[in-house]
Amino acid sequence: MPNPTAAILIIGDEILSGRTREGNAHYLAGQLVERGITCREIRVVPDDNEVIVAAVRELSAAHDHLFTSGGIGPTHDDITADAVAEAMGAKLDVREDAKAILAAHYAARDTEFTAARLRMARIPDGAVLIENPVSAAPGFSLGNVHVMAGVPNIFQAMVEGLLPKLTGGAPMLSRSLQVLRAESSVADDLRALAGRYPDLSIGSYPFVQEGRYGTNLVLRGTDPVQVDAGFAELKTAFPEGT
Amino acid sequence: MPNPTAAILIIGDEILSGRTREGNAHYLAGQLVERGITCREIRVVPDDNEVIVAAVRELSAAHDHLFTSGGIGPTHDDITADAVAEAMGAKLDVREDAKAILAAHYAARDTEFTAARLRMARIPDGAVLIENPVSAAPGFSLGNVHVMAGVPNIFQAMVEGLLPKLTGGAPMLSRSLQVLRAESSVADDLRALAGRYPDLSIGSYPFVQEGRYGTNLVLRGTDPVQVDAGFAELKTAFPEGT
Repeated sequence: MPNPTAAILIIGDEILSGRTREGNAHYLAGQLVERGITCREIRVVPDDNEVIVAAVRELSAAHDHLFTSGGIGPTHDDITADAVAEAMGAKLDVREDAKAILAAHYAARDTEFTAARLRMARIPDGAVLIENPVSAAPGFSLGNVHVMAGVPNIFQAMVEGLLPKLTGGAPMLSRSLQVLRAESSVADDLRALAGRYPDLSIGSYPFVQEGRYGTNLVLRGTDPVQVDAGFAELKTAFPEGT
Repeated sequence: MPNPTAAILIIGDEILSGRTREGNAHYLAGQLVERGITCREIRVVPDDNEVIVAAVRELSAAHDHLFTSGGIGPTHDDITADAVAEAMGAKLDVREDAKAILAAHYAARDTEFTAARLRMARIPDGAVLIENPVSAAPGFSLGNVHVMAGVPNIFQAMVEGLLPKLTGGAPMLSRSLQVLRAESSVADDLRALAGRYPDLSIGSYPFVQEGRYGTNLVLRGTDPVQVDAGFAELKTAFPEGT
């Protein structure tokens, strides 16, 4: 059975304007590979209800899982929960379980539970809460859509709590070899190898280091026997590789 | 007249697997803002012909410009030129102008011009070459689709050559204020300000530094008078901001 597939949807004007360098997609992509979930798309969209609704509908229908990051805070531009509820046809209102979590958090800190903060307790009907061990305001899973915060340490904490609950497939294995040769000089050998191992993904990633051209050769697959056999051939073709 | 819009399409399995942390989209997004081109979407897709063709068709139709990064090297997984040509209905073959550039580059370096390297001279009919001052192999613009390399220093050099040729709009201006308050405690004031300045984009970006909560308040717009007026109100509302 093929591995489950996923898409990641990053929501926020600040990324599209170049103000913020996004890192949550990169973090989650690495975690998904380890769990045997194949990430097929990463998409960044603005804080625009219509665009978010369309992206959630498209990506949740096309993949086994959709993970979102951003737009669930207390301010006027935090519209992700509303958009996801609309996309999935769910009602959205303050939910007592989320409200209780926030109330306890603010009470313990002697901080006022304002109307703006109450906004973070708005959770769609039928959604399962995702724990936020950093700042309490929960994320949620609605169907196959997993809605998480954009602040990196909160996002990572939510992912750590969520992923063990999802069913993965065979973890993707990878082996890599670095050669100090230009990518164009390894192309023929790689093409031949790719032809002999159709189930492996064989990639080449050129780099320049201290004025010298080099290429990282990466071989990926889920079958350890194939990965080992392909990698042995790769080492034979590039004995100088490290 | 509203500013032209753009999308960025990043092509490569290595980003979706979490192996490589992508930086080209962040770099280009910042450059586009300065030129008054509004980036509305960033999408990362695998080295999969069908997926790339569909994304190029959708994003080039929806926006004034589509910029792509990755997949134009010499190896078997470099399929971007083929996919873009297919998406735009153009023929693709080795083109003499691109071949001459590569031939001169390799001759000057006493390097063999192999069949794998010739692959990088495959350019769609009707496309305009984008100069590559780093390693010669050109990118190209076909209609409103601008196809560039994925290697960061080559990508940046191509962007620097290309962008001055594109017509931009009014550059986006931004002013920001940092306050050492949690995002939820600034939400009400920001919402009120956003209501009074519908043409400005007002964002809030929480952070945690040395255990303290803080928020960056960012105000963006193309009209300097509105931006200044809005920012003056922001400073009045948050006199402690820096």
